[in-house]
Amino acid sequence: MNAKPYQQRVARCASLMQAAGIEASLLTKPANMQYLTGDGRLCAYALVTRQGQVALGVPKTDIADVAALAHYDHLTGFDDEVGMIHGIAHDLARYGISDGALGLEYTYVTQSMRAMLTHPHAKPADMGVLDATHVMTQLRLVKDAEEIERLTAAARVADIGVAAAIEAVVAGATESQVAAAGEYAMRQAGADEFWRSYVATGPRTSIAHGLPTQRRLQPGDAVLIDLHPIVDGYSADVCRTVFVGHVSDDQASAYGLYASAQQSAIALASAGVTMATLEHTMHETIRQGGHGEHLFGPPIHGIGIEFEEPPLPAGHAFFHGEKEAPPLPANVVIAVGNCGIYTGAWGVRVEDTVVIGPDGPHLLTHADRALTVL
Amino acid sequence: MNAKPYQQRVARCASLMQAAGIEASLLTKPANMQYLTGDGRLCAYALVTRQGQVALGVPKTDIADVAALAHYDHLTGFDDEVGMIHGIAHDLARYGISDGALGLEYTYVTQSMRAMLTHPHAKPADMGVLDATHVMTQLRLVKDAEEIERLTAAARVADIGVAAAIEAVVAGATESQVAAAGEYAMRQAGADEFWRSYVATGPRTSIAHGLPTQRRLQPGDAVLIDLHPIVDGYSADVCRTVFVGHVSDDQASAYGLYASAQQSAIALASAGVTMATLEHTMHETIRQGGHGEHLFGPPIHGIGIEFEEPPLPAGHAFFHGEKEAPPLPANVVIAVGNCGIYTGAWGVRVEDTVVIGPDGPHLLTHADRALTVL
Repeated sequence: MNAKPYQQRVARCASLMQAAGIEASLLTKPANMQYLTGDGRLCAYALVTRQGQVALGVPKTDIADVAALAHYDHLTGFDDEVGMIHGIAHDLARYGISDGALGLEYTYVTQSMRAMLTHPHAKPADMGVLDATHVMTQLRLVKDAEEIERLTAAARVADIGVAAAIEAVVAGATESQVAAAGEYAMRQAGADEFWRSYVATGPRTSIAHGLPTQRRLQPGDAVLIDLHPIVDGYSADVCRTVFVGHVSDDQASAYGLYASAQQSAIALASAGVTMATLEHTMHETIRQGGHGEHLFGPPIHGIGIEFEEPPLPAGHAFFHGEKEAPPLPANVVIAVGNCGIYTGAWGVRVEDTVVIGPDGPHLLTHADRALTVL
Repeated sequence: MNAKPYQQRVARCASLMQAAGIEASLLTKPANMQYLTGDGRLCAYALVTRQGQVALGVPKTDIADVAALAHYDHLTGFDDEVGMIHGIAHDLARYGISDGALGLEYTYVTQSMRAMLTHPHAKPADMGVLDATHVMTQLRLVKDAEEIERLTAAARVADIGVAAAIEAVVAGATESQVAAAGEYAMRQAGADEFWRSYVATGPRTSIAHGLPTQRRLQPGDAVLIDLHPIVDGYSADVCRTVFVGHVSDDQASAYGLYASAQQSAIALASAGVTMATLEHTMHETIRQGGHGEHLFGPPIHGIGIEFEEPPLPAGHAFFHGEKEAPPLPANVVIAVGNCGIYTGAWGVRVEDTVVIGPDGPHLLTHADRALTVL
């Protein structure tokens, strides 16, 4: 394993923390811990100092596993929450930190987690608290070559999953059974995990977050399949809509419109493009096609360790504790097509994972986009 | 659909809110929304007043779906986060609420969600904020007959899943492939969803949260399989440890010890038992068997809509923003066996879903507990 990329990430993190006035960041979000150390897990913390030191605290059971996977300066195993709190205090003392601001991940830390992490036995009384979200977002925005390799591997598995799910589309199957086929195929193809799968059918294709149910597919149904495998710590996002038995003219035309709107946005995915331009392009094509009333949700979001991460469109970002993204540099990776056309009776959505290239888009997901009636 | 149980739950919620000094609760946790209204989903809110009124806000795409599934007094569809914030303000105004305390779920709401939900355009300036966690915990503690029916259905699916996963245990398979088999079988058997599956093998059985990886099973490996299907909105929790090819004397003896400790705790699962007694019984048996140094994590937790919910052991509860549970009344449902024996080289864990009966335990999961070498 190569420690160097992690050392470089920690050094960049320390310099962004300095600019943000954060003395030490106390990270508990697995995605952020993974980015900086090579390992992220539940019930653990990473304390990162402005001098670039990293102390990890993990369940005592996990010491050997973490030691083999992560890069760090100090590793503590704890028995329980009391041990975790004392571990944090000892790590701060180890690095001589007793004042200044402690960075917490405001987009991840609940009210009760905050109470635990800032417990008087953990945080020195003279330390304040600041949001470390933007430091981590800036840090993770542009993907390096190894990250893009992993995203490519995840996208390949996403394509396999969506093909297997489409294969399971048959009148009489449940939404959950279609999801089962996609998820099974993704694990067989090398996924360690996956984020929640959306499989919605019939009128349920018209809702924003169509998690699978026991509804059985019927002839004439639209079937919306949205999958998110995790391969080697990185995620992909692919969505396809297919039809059972037959497709109406309205459905076919909305599908064509949506797919062409998505392709127009993807075509603009070159270094320097803004989230606003991508969003506007997609929305405007759909509005001009007569489905402006049927849009919902941000059409573009970032993807990396998480299946939905910054950059986010500005409004969405603001309310989710993130900042507006700068014009996107090359090697930001985005999912394009996350809004949809939702008519009430049915909906369509097509989404792909795309690398912003220096001179144009580089698609990572390739599943068939032709109108498909099964 | 029968509205009455939901009306009764809302009435009980209103009375607990009155006791807690909460004027209106603004719930965003799907599990809590589901309990009170019959429907819980992402990116939505339920405003519950002390007078027992319920206003829901959901994505505008979801109006018809929610209207068919949920019980409420008022339903708003919104376009985006700005619409959501204005929906909350309008709902508070609708019920004439402009001061007193707004209840938020401190164990669910992140710092950034809190900023959104208490945005000046959502929350009147004269309203304070209080934690609504304990109200919802008290409310959901004892399960009614229909909930126990759903938990029973979930437990049946969990048994099917663990049997299918064990069926896939063979040298050369990956941990993820074993998980795939269990998850696929659970969806085929009627699960809508499942919480994260743990499948860990070999030395990885000795870590606290063994999520599946690409590690391939080897002869002599312990294989720990922990599954959590969701059926009709309710969850079950089952864990089994099996062995590949052969089992060492130490492994067999630790397995026997753990299984007997778990059964001793289950035997005490009658109305009036305390979490401390259950925890102590399980820990003490394991300590006396010589594995006291190898314990980690709370051995017992509640289960219902969530696969891990209150009651929690006292220490764990405190640090997770919950209160110590009272002596457990009949029809509390718990998972017994969530700690483990973790030796470093390997671990064992056996866990079942159990209803606290008036005069003794009622087991919901039945998968084989005999020492199994495949």
